[in-house]
Amino acid sequence: MPNTTEINATTFSAESYFATQPEPPTLKADIQGVSHFIDSQIEKGRKVVLVTSGGTTVPLELNVVRFLDNFSAGTRGATSAEYFLKQGYAVIFMHRQFSLQPFSRNYSHSTHPFLDFLEIDAALPSSSTIDSAYPYSNDPSPSAAHPHITVKTSEKAALLSVLRTYKAVQAKGTLHTLTFVTVNDYLYLLRAISKEMKQLGPKAMYYLAAAVSDFFLPRQKMSEHKIQSGKGSLHIEMDQVPKVLKPLVSEWVPAGFVVSFKLETDPALLIPKARQALERYGHQVVIGNDLHHRKHRVVLVSPKSTASDRKILPNGVEYEEMWIEIDSSPSAPHKEIEEGIVRELVARHDAWIKRA
Amino acid sequence: MPNTTEINATTFSAESYFATQPEPPTLKADIQGVSHFIDSQIEKGRKVVLVTSGGTTVPLELNVVRFLDNFSAGTRGATSAEYFLKQGYAVIFMHRQFSLQPFSRNYSHSTHPFLDFLEIDAALPSSSTIDSAYPYSNDPSPSAAHPHITVKTSEKAALLSVLRTYKAVQAKGTLHTLTFVTVNDYLYLLRAISKEMKQLGPKAMYYLAAAVSDFFLPRQKMSEHKIQSGKGSLHIEMDQVPKVLKPLVSEWVPAGFVVSFKLETDPALLIPKARQALERYGHQVVIGNDLHHRKHRVVLVSPKSTASDRKILPNGVEYEEMWIEIDSSPSAPHKEIEEGIVRELVARHDAWIKRA
Repeated sequence: MPNTTEINATTFSAESYFATQPEPPTLKADIQGVSHFIDSQIEKGRKVVLVTSGGTTVPLELNVVRFLDNFSAGTRGATSAEYFLKQGYAVIFMHRQFSLQPFSRNYSHSTHPFLDFLEIDAALPSSSTIDSAYPYSNDPSPSAAHPHITVKTSEKAALLSVLRTYKAVQAKGTLHTLTFVTVNDYLYLLRAISKEMKQLGPKAMYYLAAAVSDFFLPRQKMSEHKIQSGKGSLHIEMDQVPKVLKPLVSEWVPAGFVVSFKLETDPALLIPKARQALERYGHQVVIGNDLHHRKHRVVLVSPKSTASDRKILPNGVEYEEMWIEIDSSPSAPHKEIEEGIVRELVARHDAWIKRA
Repeated sequence: MPNTTEINATTFSAESYFATQPEPPTLKADIQGVSHFIDSQIEKGRKVVLVTSGGTTVPLELNVVRFLDNFSAGTRGATSAEYFLKQGYAVIFMHRQFSLQPFSRNYSHSTHPFLDFLEIDAALPSSSTIDSAYPYSNDPSPSAAHPHITVKTSEKAALLSVLRTYKAVQAKGTLHTLTFVTVNDYLYLLRAISKEMKQLGPKAMYYLAAAVSDFFLPRQKMSEHKIQSGKGSLHIEMDQVPKVLKPLVSEWVPAGFVVSFKLETDPALLIPKARQALERYGHQVVIGNDLHHRKHRVVLVSPKSTASDRKILPNGVEYEEMWIEIDSSPSAPHKEIEEGIVRELVARHDAWIKRA
């Protein structure tokens, strides 16, 4: 690391972060798209949810070759977005480039590649199809002039269902997608989108499922070119990313319904960390996931209510916890935990809107 | 970082690396598959290329939440693998999980999503299709009992071509795919696959396009759980990954044709670094890419030959450089630089086999 401007570690507030770190060049164009989208949803009277999804990167070089990343394929965000759409929400889906997206997430190139369930239906013996197809050709051979591409019977019903919903969502215009890569992109986008969504007041939900880095390397400390190896070990010192949940809840969208996530690998930390977050930021729900069971079990932690399972903390604030769990045995029918999470949140959000 | 076993930084040889870092649990099963694949290729008399592709991760925690990563979508490897298959090679495609793969790489969910070119061809007005499809349903509505899924006319020829080649390759059995995630997975797989391929002698090519981390965190220095934030800045100290190209060339596959890659962001370093690598490891070709022009221009650097553009270095070793370039203007016909790279390498590999 070159020793340039000395910035005191761990002192970034949200304000000083935005004052010293550069705005992404695409921000203005991105926000214009969001603004149009929100206008048309307000016209239709729809509730709007911002879903953030996937991990953020922390580049170590200005010409990026290496970066710190957070584990996240984007499953939680992409799946939840589908269920919000199903519940009639308009969804702003802000996700890490190349992470999973609603609908196409069902056809991962690694686990469920779509090329495997397409078939060529030609009036030809299959061996001659193979020969004529090899080597590559963009010109269909004359003997296979009008082949059809068909979907394997076993895959057809599921694909039809996904495809219908995808096309219905496109026709209704209820999904708006944006991408980010770095934690800097993420922070700037989150702030700008929130400010656009503020006018929705309580009708907006913020479902912050992205795995955001806690640390970053200020622009002023970055190496311009690829860090060269061969010079011993690598030392990296990173500063803390400011906790933007604080200004988001108190300034950017004070009337919004805000849901954040906590991922821990030590289950004992889950509930204490969730409560600490609620206490610190004053928002509505923290969803706690344990890395190894996150697909089958989560806990919704929220401040005071009349639920049965409540605790009183020393500071007098009451919390309640609600566990949502699905059967994880291989013989259980296929279910997605996001369906239950979204159903519960929509009910709470409706109550929130009524109270407002 | 917890302070556990003190390992002296930067002292890992390939030998001490494998002696101290744990073998991936799936290695044995992976290698069994490779071994069967090689046997059947030997039977058919085919040349075999190992293509490595995508970046490697360096986990910072045993229960991984954060990791260091290398920039790479896997385009070079996935595209090159297709051209090697076209040239009649059997391909062992060893790639980073979720990076691009041959064939499906043409249909990225982000840039060219396949759901966008499928259509539902039902005997229904499109508005009623939209209504009946929403909300989700796995049961096709009775009024749309036998809809067909069809491919948009504009996409059909290209998809047919990809699909035919994909199916032809499957029928011939010339593509074997394996995945890695961490740099540790990569190093163990590379060593084990090379040892299996040794029996192919000069008929094996090693096309090492993966972006491998230069640094890693030894198991003994890793934190068990997620590193907690809120305790100031993050300090990471990483050790150097051993340069396994050395034992690969001199011990693991001494008769093989070995091609490595250099990616630099500073173009001035490209050729000096490529020569340095050839000098150090004694292999056949280094392909130099500049991060910003890698899709349109690369340089093949190799030791002595009769080519015109050669230089004599102080150490007496002669090098030649061959630039491969394609027209990058938007109006130029669609070409892929990997086609030219693979064609050149196949010619050199054939000469190498003849000389052996």
